[in-house]
Amino acid sequence: MSKIVYLDMSMSVDGFVAGPGVSAESGLGAGGERLHEWLFVDPAPESSALLDQTMKRIGSMMTGRRTYDISQWGPDGPAGELRLPVFVLTNRGVPGPEAGSVYTFVTSGVDELVERAKAAAGEKDIAVSGADVGQQLLRAGYVDELVVHVVPELFGEGLRLYDQVGAHIGLEIIETIPTSRVTHQRYRVLNRKAG
Amino acid sequence: MSKIVYLDMSMSVDGFVAGPGVSAESGLGAGGERLHEWLFVDPAPESSALLDQTMKRIGSMMTGRRTYDISQWGPDGPAGELRLPVFVLTNRGVPGPEAGSVYTFVTSGVDELVERAKAAAGEKDIAVSGADVGQQLLRAGYVDELVVHVVPELFGEGLRLYDQVGAHIGLEIIETIPTSRVTHQRYRVLNRKAG
Repeated sequence: MSKIVYLDMSMSVDGFVAGPGVSAESGLGAGGERLHEWLFVDPAPESSALLDQTMKRIGSMMTGRRTYDISQWGPDGPAGELRLPVFVLTNRGVPGPEAGSVYTFVTSGVDELVERAKAAAGEKDIAVSGADVGQQLLRAGYVDELVVHVVPELFGEGLRLYDQVGAHIGLEIIETIPTSRVTHQRYRVLNRKAG
Repeated sequence: MSKIVYLDMSMSVDGFVAGPGVSAESGLGAGGERLHEWLFVDPAPESSALLDQTMKRIGSMMTGRRTYDISQWGPDGPAGELRLPVFVLTNRGVPGPEAGSVYTFVTSGVDELVERAKAAAGEKDIAVSGADVGQQLLRAGYVDELVVHVVPELFGEGLRLYDQVGAHIGLEIIETIPTSRVTHQRYRVLNRKAG
């Protein structure tokens, strides 16, 4: 049980991962797609290198229901290199995963979510994507590392990445990767739960 | 009227400039002093260079009443290089500035605040320090540049730098200065008011 769990998210300078008006039809909210242009539109070489490095590190993924619902991967999950086991924390009705799908739905909380994702990751790390599940994992002391892609935008309103973190959490800068369109920051979480 | 107005603040990764429980006795809130250690405790050479560069740029300062109240400069204002005209936006009772003090209290709003600070800055730039006044100036389209010192901390609660920005504001990365203890970021504000 020594895998690194890292929370990997794009956010605006003022801390939002989605714009206002998030709904089933608009999973990223108004303007939210701007947070992902660094990735989808002509990524900088430094950004691509970081993504390649991430791809090699991770053995499984954890996410939340909103991120699952807005995913463009479809019910079978991602193809190619990114085809990894994905554990989705949800407290709403569980859609029956298709046979051979990468998705496993976990309704019993973050402890089981982490246990199952770690078992599936083998010797590799576990990536977390999703603000709500990220906050739950941070509060429970399960997150070892933050990977934040800070995008030059002030959203003013929307869905905040670190909204329900609760108590103070100290970090340590591992790495800062500046580019002209996004700043990648990796932080070690200092007061994570031992184990 | 072509001076650059820039908002210069230290903030946590989750966007706070002060911890919870801000009061007259605790102007930075619980743990808020951690946001300023990069500056006061053995600053990195890159941080010192940025501060020196800032010092040479600015001809006047704008701030808010909270920042004034917690300032360690005393009623006469800063000495030495930092001895510049400071314009304090306030809607509470105006303390009579001491003769020769650097402080001018402005109660009529941000338009007059900016006009007076620009007049005092001569050919130089104007620095803004203070979350509330910064938000008011951003909303009014007066801020040309953000200088954010991002400190590796998640506060979870406290006073947010960009809490009342309102509508979306696009930025452009001017410069990212990584250090091991703080990440300095300079952004150009794209939708500022012309003038």
